[in-house]
Amino acid sequence: MSYDLSWNQYGKAEVRVVHVERSGPEHVVRDLNVTTALRGDFGPAYTDGDNARVLTTDAQKNTVFGLARETGVGEPEAFALAVARQLLQACPSADVARVVVEEFPWSPLGSGGRAFSRTGSHVRTAELELTRAGAVELSGGVAELVVLKTTGSEYHGFLKERFTTLAETDDRLLATQVTARWRYAADTAGGLEGADHAAVHAGALAALLEAFAGHHSLALQQTLHAMGTAVLDARPELAEVTLSLPNKHHFLQDLSPFGLDNPGAVFHADDRPYGLIEGTISRR
Amino acid sequence: MSYDLSWNQYGKAEVRVVHVERSGPEHVVRDLNVTTALRGDFGPAYTDGDNARVLTTDAQKNTVFGLARETGVGEPEAFALAVARQLLQACPSADVARVVVEEFPWSPLGSGGRAFSRTGSHVRTAELELTRAGAVELSGGVAELVVLKTTGSEYHGFLKERFTTLAETDDRLLATQVTARWRYAADTAGGLEGADHAAVHAGALAALLEAFAGHHSLALQQTLHAMGTAVLDARPELAEVTLSLPNKHHFLQDLSPFGLDNPGAVFHADDRPYGLIEGTISRR
Amino acid sequence: MSYDLSWNQYGKAEVRVVHVERSGPEHVVRDLNVTTALRGDFGPAYTDGDNARVLTTDAQKNTVFGLARETGVGEPEAFALAVARQLLQACPSADVARVVVEEFPWSPLGSGGRAFSRTGSHVRTAELELTRAGAVELSGGVAELVVLKTTGSEYHGFLKERFTTLAETDDRLLATQVTARWRYAADTAGGLEGADHAAVHAGALAALLEAFAGHHSLALQQTLHAMGTAVLDARPELAEVTLSLPNKHHFLQDLSPFGLDNPGAVFHADDRPYGLIEGTISRR
Amino acid sequence: MSYDLSWNQYGKAEVRVVHVERSGPEHVVRDLNVTTALRGDFGPAYTDGDNARVLTTDAQKNTVFGLARETGVGEPEAFALAVARQLLQACPSADVARVVVEEFPWSPLGSGGRAFSRTGSHVRTAELELTRAGAVELSGGVAELVVLKTTGSEYHGFLKERFTTLAETDDRLLATQVTARWRYAADTAGGLEGADHAAVHAGALAALLEAFAGHHSLALQQTLHAMGTAVLDARPELAEVTLSLPNKHHFLQDLSPFGLDNPGAVFHADDRPYGLIEGTISRR
Repeated sequence: MSYDLSWNQYGKAEVRVVHVERSGPEHVVRDLNVTTALRGDFGPAYTDGDNARVLTTDAQKNTVFGLARETGVGEPEAFALAVARQLLQACPSADVARVVVEEFPWSPLGSGGRAFSRTGSHVRTAELELTRAGAVELSGGVAELVVLKTTGSEYHGFLKERFTTLAETDDRLLATQVTARWRYAADTAGGLEGADHAAVHAGALAALLEAFAGHHSLALQQTLHAMGTAVLDARPELAEVTLSLPNKHHFLQDLSPFGLDNPGAVFHADDRPYGLIEGTISRR
Repeated sequence: MSYDLSWNQYGKAEVRVVHVERSGPEHVVRDLNVTTALRGDFGPAYTDGDNARVLTTDAQKNTVFGLARETGVGEPEAFALAVARQLLQACPSADVARVVVEEFPWSPLGSGGRAFSRTGSHVRTAELELTRAGAVELSGGVAELVVLKTTGSEYHGFLKERFTTLAETDDRLLATQVTARWRYAADTAGGLEGADHAAVHAGALAALLEAFAGHHSLALQQTLHAMGTAVLDARPELAEVTLSLPNKHHFLQDLSPFGLDNPGAVFHADDRPYGLIEGTISRR
Repeated sequence: MSYDLSWNQYGKAEVRVVHVERSGPEHVVRDLNVTTALRGDFGPAYTDGDNARVLTTDAQKNTVFGLARETGVGEPEAFALAVARQLLQACPSADVARVVVEEFPWSPLGSGGRAFSRTGSHVRTAELELTRAGAVELSGGVAELVVLKTTGSEYHGFLKERFTTLAETDDRLLATQVTARWRYAADTAGGLEGADHAAVHAGALAALLEAFAGHHSLALQQTLHAMGTAVLDARPELAEVTLSLPNKHHFLQDLSPFGLDNPGAVFHADDRPYGLIEGTISRR
Repeated sequence: MSYDLSWNQYGKAEVRVVHVERSGPEHVVRDLNVTTALRGDFGPAYTDGDNARVLTTDAQKNTVFGLARETGVGEPEAFALAVARQLLQACPSADVARVVVEEFPWSPLGSGGRAFSRTGSHVRTAELELTRAGAVELSGGVAELVVLKTTGSEYHGFLKERFTTLAETDDRLLATQVTARWRYAADTAGGLEGADHAAVHAGALAALLEAFAGHHSLALQQTLHAMGTAVLDARPELAEVTLSLPNKHHFLQDLSPFGLDNPGAVFHADDRPYGLIEGTISRR
């Protein structure tokens, strides 16, 4: 045949596993959405329907549930590593195992540690690719982290051409929904499995938020850069931060037809379109 | 003609107004999604396209933005009252004005009161119907409030018939996404406009959460009842509480095929179907 | 206690049942999302966690799957009737059974009747409340039916007041996402079970679309009225039609800053806010 | 500083432009969701908030609307090319312009060509990256194309290990929601701008559906391969097809507890988890 299978990947998406650790005085809930995938020498399944090398997606799901019991569920980065190692071991034809974890954070309701409510709007994420040769790409991150500044944001001095009609401003409302992914250095001290993932997550998240709040912004691009460098400053384990920042536009509503002024008081939050500013900051 | 227009309602849905109060040392952000509607003597618009009595939905939107500036935006219950009064005044053919508000809560990021992040996963709600005669139905509430208990929930003793195969349990994981609506007594002391809506909201929400956490549950129905009565106990201003509690099933995953036990440790969170338990608790 | 359980309802929501009828030369797929609920004398479950009268929501789910096998799945109205009758029979404490069905339509791919693709963007609906005394409210309908007219829509002559700034127009783009519910007359010839639900659905849907396309609109209210009366004209079985028509605004984009005219050519489709026009047309 | 901006991209996402061509006897509606982005030498905006080289995302949005008027909106692939060329011309610091188009298909309602309804559940897509040097990556595609087979799908012979418990089957219901992207050969006859994009789209879509319907499947991987090769067979303009096929599981419901058999009749459609099978087929 004159065609090639030039890329392939398959797995199980969105396994919703909830683990309750009941050994301590307070229960610990980990609420995960886990996606696994394998890449490798699976051509015969595609070309001939020969599944002999295929670890079924059902077995991948079972692996997630089984390991949740066998190894427990701690930090999502560590759980991703455990799952990926097991998948590569179970499936000799796989060259790469990919695991993506979303964790929905919960906070205790009152004391006692038996009841919980969802914390914030955001999701914690981990993303891993592990090769059979042992190369590892491991990232932590957050998604759906919605933040807003009521002042401290300007925007002017941009390129003018035929389609540029935007008014310049020295004070606007700035809002975004942060997606951030911080990649661990492959040679981080203690190794990727030994890193203190909880501390890295907490430190990176705090740095992101502090940079967003404290930064005086001349452009969302500049805010992105400040947030990314703050994360790298905060955690030496990290090699690189990628941020995706939708500019969730809040437009000052024109109230002059009703005889009203509007000195930064009343805004309309628009859904679409939105600016989308992205970038990766890397440690040299 | 042999047909009647037996019911009509029209308005503007989902006006996304964000108000920033900058007068104090810390800015105050109110982030609302406002829906308005009118009912009344609008037959000619329906039967003949005669719009002479119609306050356009565009004008209803403008009313929301204009009042946000003119009266400010405080508690959603009070803002709904202000909008409804203005709509009835502007549109003589309307008999009833209906206003529904969703408020997305924000928390300050650090000190300074200039940067904010979304708080929790939930939404605060207010719902109002105001008639020209002055009758008022006013409710506060919450939606999308996701809570979970790791123990303290049993379920047994139910009716058995041909299609009943559910196993009885004396310990299950219980999770729900609360929608609650608490209706103010029409004759509440100080009047509906004078009520301390912020305190009622805080008190009702705290009572809901405390009841959920503290209640030993024999059925989600019973939990609903406990939550509703706790709200009425907490706030004498309220006449009635309606709760809608989806039972977000978390099924214990069967790990025995892999030689593993599962003593309340590993659950699968299911999307659909879900139980849906609803009820209204009224003060006698 | 000084509180009453003044309303209650419970059931299973969103049972996703797919039925394949393989007896004919072409397979027939019915793809349903079924929600059931019971109302009645269930106070003890709420007040005391006494579940003795409760037909579990799990059993309600099983009833849906079991009847899909036992009676087959034909028109959603008929399936809703079968499920409701069975629920009332199984649960003596229930006074009312409520069944809501969404059906996702599929069309054959090529000949052979073995492969299918989703047809259109819309959903077919049926809604039923059956009391133990035998009173029945049965409706069919559609949802998510997205339609648009490029001309034949005017809007002017409306009430003017302080917040009215909308320009009048004698030609606009009109788009909506139809939700319609047509209620059968309780005394329809042949009875509710005997009615030709497939023909009623096809006739009502065709009438809706034809009225939308053919009607010259002076207001979306008038379009609603024309669509509702067309449905009642088309099917004598029906007593009443309720329509909910969001006005999905398409605003003519102002291109004059770039030296371009815009004679009804380029529009921006807005998400929110949207007008929401609703009404019920009843046979006298 | 010890950090690099190692990647950057910015633009406007989800510009919802609707174009009506009124010159012919029947109106033609093109309903697009357009996302643009630029990559290039924009470091100063990130590091210093110096926006002098930045074509604002607002201007990118205006470009979309302006070109919709100036050049009209034909096939999405051609519109993407026009937008990308204009963006590179307007913004000297950009090295690459990226344009992604989703088109929502509409069908005429009746004759006359003035009213329309949404066709099918799917979206047509186009994706383009254009470099200043003139290199072009252009793809067409579809998304959200939901299809189902009631028979002609087996699954067995897969790898067995500890976590493999899936039963083998020689007849299952197979359903998927196709995302496909077909990349044009850079050297296609007549050039990328001269290609008959409408015919390529129609031919590729027909080939996809025919292959899905006609293929006897031993694995969804094999179905993917058959669909990809069918597209390449159908259109010589295309160099490569990438498919992403979620296996939307329909599980045979166990009805034996109620004394019922279930010979391929009643299925439960599950939301999550789902298998996710992906692959790229390339012309050699």
